[in-house]
Amino acid sequence: MIEDIVKKTLLFDFYGQLLTDKQRDIMEMYYTDDLSLSEISEQIGISRQGVYDTLKRAEATLIEYESRLGLVDKFLQHKSILSEIKSMLDEILNVDGIDVNEIKEMIKSIKNYIEKLE
Amino acid sequence: MIEDIVKKTLLFDFYGQLLTDKQRDIMEMYYTDDLSLSEISEQIGISRQGVYDTLKRAEATLIEYESRLGLVDKFLQHKSILSEIKSMLDEILNVDGIDVNEIKEMIKSIKNYIEKLE
Repeated sequence: MIEDIVKKTLLFDFYGQLLTDKQRDIMEMYYTDDLSLSEISEQIGISRQGVYDTLKRAEATLIEYESRLGLVDKFLQHKSILSEIKSMLDEILNVDGIDVNEIKEMIKSIKNYIEKLE
Repeated sequence: MIEDIVKKTLLFDFYGQLLTDKQRDIMEMYYTDDLSLSEISEQIGISRQGVYDTLKRAEATLIEYESRLGLVDKFLQHKSILSEIKSMLDEILNVDGIDVNEIKEMIKSIKNYIEKLE
């Protein structure tokens, strides 16, 4: 459930600019401001069903963009590589008595990770 | 001129999947296969003007996507950060007689660069 919302938020972050203003507004009210369908319906003066349909259509559009461009997927991969790199850098910074040769071996691994980001 | 073609190629790499098949085919023939407008016109059986218009419309579409999502711009920024990081890693690997404290200072700078990629 939480994972689902995170995924939708990421889709919205990456492709929200490609939605119509109306779709974007409704998605923000629903996911960011946490309003119910009825509350959104009252606020913008369209039916509850209209809000629901707009939301579903917007989500389908975001999923379609992701299937073509895969930015969220790439972002998540990069995030995990960056976090690997950061923990290796921290290890070099924080381990006492680490010697230059050990560090150089780790630097080589970090270079390999960096190349995956290119 | 070369810069212009590189920029168009990047736009195509990032957003080409959002074009129609026809737009994508014509852009590939023109930019990748280096065919002339007339050659493309003969090959796919539409007028030279039709090829030209499709090309211009496709380019405008790519530029519109970039103005909304800015992926090429972000990519170029990341590329330059990654190249900074790589040269710092190479310095650690290749400079003789570098000591652990010097390395740790450089690692801290690399961590700052990594954070810019997040």
